[in-house]
This record gives sequence, C-alpha cells and structure tokens, in this order.
Amino acid sequence: MPPPTDPNRVIIFDTTLRDGEQSPGCSMNLGEKLEMAHALTALGVDVIEAGFPIASPGDFESVQAIARQIHGPVICGLARCNPADIDRAADAVKDAARPRIHVFLATSAIHREFKLRMTPAEVAAKAVEGVKRARDRVEDVEFSPEDAARTELDFLTEVVEKAIEAGATTLNIPDTVGYAVPSHYASIIRHLKKHVRGIEKCVLSVHCHDDLGMAVANSLAALGEGARQVECTVNGIGERAGNTSLEEVVMALHTRRDFYKLTTGINTRHLYPVSRKLSHITGMAVQRNKAIVGQNAFAHEAGIHQDGMLKERSTYEIMKPEDVGLLRTELVLGKHSGRHALKQRVTDLGYHLTDEQLNRVFDEFKKLADLKKEIYDADIEALAENQLQAGTRNVWTLAGFTSTAGTGSQTSAAVSLRHQDGTVRRDAAVGNGPIDALFKAVDRVTGVPVKVIDYRVRSVTQDMDAMGEAQVEIDHEGKRSKGRAVSVDVIEASALAYLEVINRVVSRKSRDRLKPTDHVPTEVVPGP
Amino acid sequence: MPPPTDPNRVIIFDTTLRDGEQSPGCSMNLGEKLEMAHALTALGVDVIEAGFPIASPGDFESVQAIARQIHGPVICGLARCNPADIDRAADAVKDAARPRIHVFLATSAIHREFKLRMTPAEVAAKAVEGVKRARDRVEDVEFSPEDAARTELDFLTEVVEKAIEAGATTLNIPDTVGYAVPSHYASIIRHLKKHVRGIEKCVLSVHCHDDLGMAVANSLAALGEGARQVECTVNGIGERAGNTSLEEVVMALHTRRDFYKLTTGINTRHLYPVSRKLSHITGMAVQRNKAIVGQNAFAHEAGIHQDGMLKERSTYEIMKPEDVGLLRTELVLGKHSGRHALKQRVTDLGYHLTDEQLNRVFDEFKKLADLKKEIYDADIEALAENQLQAGTRNVWTLAGFTSTAGTGSQTSAAVSLRHQDGTVRRDAAVGNGPIDALFKAVDRVTGVPVKVIDYRVRSVTQDMDAMGEAQVEIDHEGKRSKGRAVSVDVIEASALAYLEVINRVVSRKSRDRLKPTDHVPTEVVPGP
Repeated sequence: MPPPTDPNRVIIFDTTLRDGEQSPGCSMNLGEKLEMAHALTALGVDVIEAGFPIASPGDFESVQAIARQIHGPVICGLARCNPADIDRAADAVKDAARPRIHVFLATSAIHREFKLRMTPAEVAAKAVEGVKRARDRVEDVEFSPEDAARTELDFLTEVVEKAIEAGATTLNIPDTVGYAVPSHYASIIRHLKKHVRGIEKCVLSVHCHDDLGMAVANSLAALGEGARQVECTVNGIGERAGNTSLEEVVMALHTRRDFYKLTTGINTRHLYPVSRKLSHITGMAVQRNKAIVGQNAFAHEAGIHQDGMLKERSTYEIMKPEDVGLLRTELVLGKHSGRHALKQRVTDLGYHLTDEQLNRVFDEFKKLADLKKEIYDADIEALAENQLQAGTRNVWTLAGFTSTAGTGSQTSAAVSLRHQDGTVRRDAAVGNGPIDALFKAVDRVTGVPVKVIDYRVRSVTQDMDAMGEAQVEIDHEGKRSKGRAVSVDVIEASALAYLEVINRVVSRKSRDRLKPTDHVPTEVVPGP
Repeated sequence: MPPPTDPNRVIIFDTTLRDGEQSPGCSMNLGEKLEMAHALTALGVDVIEAGFPIASPGDFESVQAIARQIHGPVICGLARCNPADIDRAADAVKDAARPRIHVFLATSAIHREFKLRMTPAEVAAKAVEGVKRARDRVEDVEFSPEDAARTELDFLTEVVEKAIEAGATTLNIPDTVGYAVPSHYASIIRHLKKHVRGIEKCVLSVHCHDDLGMAVANSLAALGEGARQVECTVNGIGERAGNTSLEEVVMALHTRRDFYKLTTGINTRHLYPVSRKLSHITGMAVQRNKAIVGQNAFAHEAGIHQDGMLKERSTYEIMKPEDVGLLRTELVLGKHSGRHALKQRVTDLGYHLTDEQLNRVFDEFKKLADLKKEIYDADIEALAENQLQAGTRNVWTLAGFTSTAGTGSQTSAAVSLRHQDGTVRRDAAVGNGPIDALFKAVDRVTGVPVKVIDYRVRSVTQDMDAMGEAQVEIDHEGKRSKGRAVSVDVIEASALAYLEVINRVVSRKSRDRLKPTDHVPTEVVPGP
C-alpha cells in the first residue's frame, strides 16, 4: 500500500478485472486479463482486484496468474463471507508480493431480509468470522458491507467497528445499487469517521455505481470527508450502468487539485491508451462524448473550432489532451520499417508479447504494408491484439472462402475449414448477404447450433484500404460468447470472428466434460 | 412556461437540437430535427432549443420549421449578444405559440480578456442592450453569462441583476467548460439567490458540461439551492464530453424524490425510445454501460442473474425498466400483418410519417417479411428512419451491383448508378475487400473525391437473417459528412450509405453555388 505518511494520497483500487469483467459483454480470457493487468500496472494503480476466485476455475487461474506475474500493485481476490470462498481467494493470491483478500457481506435491511434471511446480530457475527479467517491467511484484508449506502447508519457503524476489531485494514462502503447522492453519501463517511472506534487505523474506501449518473461525484464527495481509497474501473465498465470511471475520478482530482487538494499515483498519460486497450479487448466501445477518453472529449483540439476563437487555450480547455495520453502523431510505420522499429512501437503501445508472438505480428505487418502505404498505431494495436488469442488450440481454422453478392443474383458463400484432426471440410450456402451466407456455410461444416445475436464491423483506422474489425456475439444453449478478428477484408474478418466464437463454444463443451464444476458456487452474486 | 405556481416543478430545457447537434458526429438534417422535435414533445420537455439561427441558412430553416410545426413546448433560438444574431433568432421563432430568445455573452475574466477584449463595464452594458433588444421582439428572454462558473461572483451578481432589470425572464448559469464541482456550483446558485435583486421574478437555470463526469451531480446540486430549469440533452450529447444527460437527471429526480422533493413534466416511459431514436438518427451509439438507456443498464432483468438471487426485485433494482420505456415484447409483426397494423406500430414507435412515406415503409416491410419470419421493432424503426432521408432529390441512385471476394482470388465489385439526368453509368474496381472495391467502383462513376474516415456495420436485431445497418463518414475538402442505410445485405447497405453521403456532398456543392453564405457568422462560437 502507498505509505500512509501522506494523508492526501488517494489509493486507486482498480476492479476492471472483477466488477468490470463480470458485466455482460466484458468477459476476457486469461491472456487478455494479463495484458490488462500489465497495462494497469504501468498506469500506476495501487490495487488490482483480479477476480472472484471461487466463481469458476478460470477465475481462479486468472487471479493466480496475475498474482504470480504482476509486480507492483497489491493483488486482491474477492470472496463472499464464508470459509470456502475465503480459502479459495487466499490460495489464488498467495504468490503475490502483496496479497489482499476482499470479503463482502450484505448489511442493508432489504438484503438481510430477502437475500440472506439473517438478523443484524447474525450478519455482524458472520462478518467478524470472515475477516478473522482472511486475516489468518493475509495481512491485508478489506471488508465491504454490501449495499452500505442503504444500511441503517447505526448498524453500519457497528459492523464496521467489529470488522476493524477483527482485523480488517480497509473498510469499503459500497453504493451497490447506485442509489446514493453526493451530499448523503458524504454524510455516511463523515458519520463513520466520527463514530467508529479504531477508524484512524484503517483506510476508508468508496465503491460507487453509476445508475443515476453520479458515481464520480459520489466518490469525490466521500474523499472530501476523508475516504482515501476509490474503487473504480477503466471506462467505467461494471454491473448495469457500471462503476466509477477511473479516468474521470483521476482527472477530476488532477484538474481540480485547487479544490480537492489530493493526489494519486496515476500516470495520467496512460489513461487514453489503457482505455483503448480495454475497448479493443472487450469490444465495449466508449461513447463518442464520454468524458476524458471519448472521441469528442477534446474535439476542440481536432480542428473543430479552428476559427481564431482559441486565442488562448484555457478559454475552452481545462485539460490538455496530451495529459491523458491523446497524441496526434499516429502515423508511424511503413513498408520499409524493420523488425526493431515494430517491436519498439508494440512496446510503446503497451503490449507485452513473446518473441514468437512478435514474429507473427511482424509477418502480418509486412503483409499489411504491401496493401497500404501507411501503418497507423491502430493497425499495430489490432495486429498485437490478434495475438492475445494465440495459445488457444483451435478446433477449426479457416482454410479459404469465396463469396458472391449482388442485386438480382443469388448471394452465396463457400468455405473450407481445417479441423484439428487434419481433415479439410467444405460446404456452401445461400443467404441474405455474403456474411449471412458465409455463417450458414460455416454452420453446415461445424454442425454447432449457435444463434448470432449481435454482429458489427468497423474500420480500424481512418482510411478505406485499412483493416476492418469484425465482432460477433452468439448465443449457444443460453450462454453468450463473443469473437473478434481483424483483416483487410471485412468478409474475412467476419469469418475469422465467427470461427473464433465457434472454437470457444467447442472447447468449452470439451472442458466442461473434463472438469466437474466443483468450485462454481450455487448462487452467483454480483458483489459489492 | 409551466405555471410557477408549483415551486417544486423543474423545467426541462432540451438543447439536443442546438448544443447537441453542433457537436461532432451529431449533425441532423431538417427532417431528422423535426422528427426529434416531435419525439421531445411527446416526452414532455418544457422548452426545445431548436438551433442557432444565424449559424447557417439551414439552421434558420430548422428553427423556423420547428416553431411552425411543433405545438406544446416553448421554442427557443440561440443568439450571441448582438443585433444581427438577435434579429435572426427572433425571425426564426416568431411563428411559435410561445417563442423564446436565448442571448449569451461571456463574463469570465479569461473570456473577457482573450475572446471579447472587453472591460467588465462593457460586458455588462452589452448584456443589457442585448436583453432589451430581445425583449422588444418576445416576452420570454433567457440570458446566459457564458462561462459563469468561472466568473468572479461579484461581477456575475452584477450582470445577472442588470439582465433581470433589462427584462430577462430566465437566467442561466452555464458551466461552459465543465469545470464545476457540485458543492462549489451549488454555492454560486445560493449566492445569486441571496444577493441578486429581483431574482424571485425569474427562473434560475443550470447548464452543465460533463468534462469531469459531474454534469448530472452539478445540475442536481444547483436544483437543491433553488435553480428550477435544467438544460440537458438526450444521451448527454453535446460539445466535447457532452451536456447533462436528460434521462439521468430526470430519473435521479424521479428515483430519489424522497431526497430532492422535485418533479418534472417528463413522461419517463418515453426516455428509452427517444434515446434510441437519437442514436439511430445520428449514428452516435450509447455505450453499453450508460446509465438509464445503455444496453446493460437493466441487465439484471435480462436473464443475467436468474439464479434465485432476485428474491425481491428491489434488492438490486432501484428503477424498473418499464418506467423508462424498456419493454421486452419486441416481437410484433410477420408476413401476414396488414397495412393498418404496421401503421399503428410505426406510430407507437413515435414516428410521424406522411401517407406516401408509410406506403413506402409498407412495401419495404413486405419485402423484408418474405426474407425473415419475424419482424422486430428495431426492423420497423430502421425502415421508418430510411424515410427520413426521403424528399431529398438524389443525384445518384443505385441501379445494381455485384461483388466477389475470397481467399486467393481477386476481390472486385461492379456498380451501375443512375444519374438524375436518366443515364445509367457503370464501372468496376478491385479492392482489399468487397466494400473497399465497391466504394472504389462508385468513386470511378461519380468522380467525387472523398476520403472514408469511418465505416461501420451492425446488425439491427438479434437474428442473423435480419437487416444490417451501415454507416459511412467521409471527408470532402475538409468537411465531414455521414451516410446511413439499412438492408438485409450488408454490402448493399454499405453501397446505399456511401451513395447517400456522395449525394449530400454533390447537393451541398450545388447549393453553395446558389446561396451566398451571407448569414454565416465569420466567427462561430460554441455557445454556453
């Protein structure tokens, strides 16, 4: 943890990989989570909540891998307040240099009554038990009274005090359902600061949701009353309307340091690259008018008001785009750029690839450079991200395809797919468009019954001979999966994205057969 | 205006068509603006700021059309504080039943010094002059001291008092650059309430920008001190990070009426449909985790946590999806649905089409019903929106196309385009994918030099045999334009979207030749 010697230093607790990742459309595989964890470390977050280890074997593996491979931040695992959860979280984080267990238990009347069916005394006792068990395993224990913002103030005071006595070092006050308003939320923190015995030994933390659009304002109001940890996510992803946006809370503190008089350890120049990375990985686009990282956030810089109005930048600009890492020099490489220049650029863009992965990126880069004159950062990012999927052994790979479309003619597509057993199988189909035909042809070959529920294509950079990125989301037996791929041909990108998702479905089916889901809790809760 | 008899009634001033529309990527044509104005009226907004009449002849025409055709809300036109602007705004709104002129002039030291080069006394005198001139034309005059949140409190008090004496009926306090924080912004309103003579005769208004993610919280904090008008936009669109989001501020007041004790005239069940309509019209997608109207905002309703956790809805749900108009019964029409059923559905979805437009929608609907079994609301919306472009006389229309693509073969496309002079011209091109080839073939026929800077395709509804929507944004001689089209074949949708944008460029070129741009101000300012 940052030294508590500076009373004005705010701890940034990033939960992109936990509260963010568990929200619809944001799931990431192990490689993607590690990539994000590296980027968060470079960004300078103090704590990474890496996952909810008991939720699935995959979650456990991710938290363990991050605990082992990421150096710098505290690595935290989430646990409900029961022995199985806490032990599993402890096992997952144990190899971290600075491990933390985050235990939560609901305290509000409505949760006690309808979810837990427990009395206040039972809740308080269970919280104490859980915190003690976690402290037996690690020094750094965080406790969250879930739905704290709707909990009776007296009971909240009591539970927090008992959790501190039991050994909790960070006390988090979640507004689980996004119901709080700044002045009321601040008054809760003020009350706890005043009435909880031992509070001065702990870090008070805030965890807000944006259901009413006030997560950032609520977090800042709490900091004004002495909270010193903010739980937040990149791009504000998270359950429902999402969590407090990391970039907004950090830049508000930075831009209005005259008012808040607080600091963070964040390197703000990484904010924009990290935001882009997460968008690319999850396919969750940031809206154009999103604060700090949206395409329009600094649009007055992008030639929109180049009419002499900006005689002085500060007339309309309270932040500089370069302060959040938004740089204008995007054009970097061309046909004659070498392996070393590419490697440097990939590293500068925040990717951590093996030599083998870099070699594959270089091969793809050379092919692309034959097709287009100028290679942009976004192209390099797309090539690097294609490698994050690597390592997965795919059942099906694309051997070739053809498609024809046109007014007045039969639109059709034919595909050849190579199975991992070495055989190549081919089929064709007609459809309402070449993509529809192509997907139907793939279905005929693979025989996996999936339903496409979302399909998108977008250009990666600002030129038409650039690459297109395709995203496909499907439903298979009630479970949703997403595939993503990049190619200079959008039809090919679509085929690759569709195959990626088919491969996920096929490999999940075989894994589910091998591993009984012992560790999956029967009741999955969203967490604080 | 709503009767000031209820001191707790908040006036919702929508500036989607002014501050929203002028932000990058949000421009709308006359038909689209009228469609939005109808939807805003049904939503129950009190004031529609319809545009900035002096900015261009197109802006003037839109404000005038809205003033003539929209009944219910106050119709407002924006003007800088000078005679030409004010007269132009007055002319544009004069046919409204309840017209308003909104005059603005910057008051902060930085704007006075670097933009206006005026002394405080000169600024105050000019404000008085402008308000008086506006009052000579209409009863209802709003004045905005631009960048009020950064203006010295004494000077702000003086200017506001003089504007009221001069006849302003609404005083708006803009946080033009999105710099405010809730407690400080509230203190400005409190100060004005206490120190400005005559303030009780006026409505105090707030206008916030979301650069630090606090527009909603700032607006609500100001309401807590007695402001009674909120300026906001659908989906929070607007300059840079956008304006206060209408749906968030309304639902915060609604959900936390226990705390704020304020009401609005908004029919909250229109919030989601209006948000979707704006997204469709502008192509500005709302991010999945956006509060109130994002795809995930009510995701716990959509089967995500169907594991027994929701023993009681209010455990995790502070708003009901149906309260914002998010309905699950999307499946409506099929092959055998008749003209009447379609017309009813189009009307229910909030579209105002002529009989001729409805006939065209019906024809398209029948074609679509032949291709897919089930027609969803999103399909109907897409068909209805295709008609918003109608009425424009297109120079080029698509007569036909063919495309082929595939691994190892030359990807190519051929198009036939019909010119308005009756001739059909054809050409072909190769490309990196069928879309690239198609656009290049179109370029060969039309000879218009455009550069594609953004290209997107998405599925309209959740089935693959559904329609695809294509969006193309181009740059032509430094000006950006956007085209959008829907078809069951994404290649065809792409061709149509690209042609739409080519037609815009061509018709703009011919219009620019005919109409000298007398009314375009030499200096375009973003407004409060």
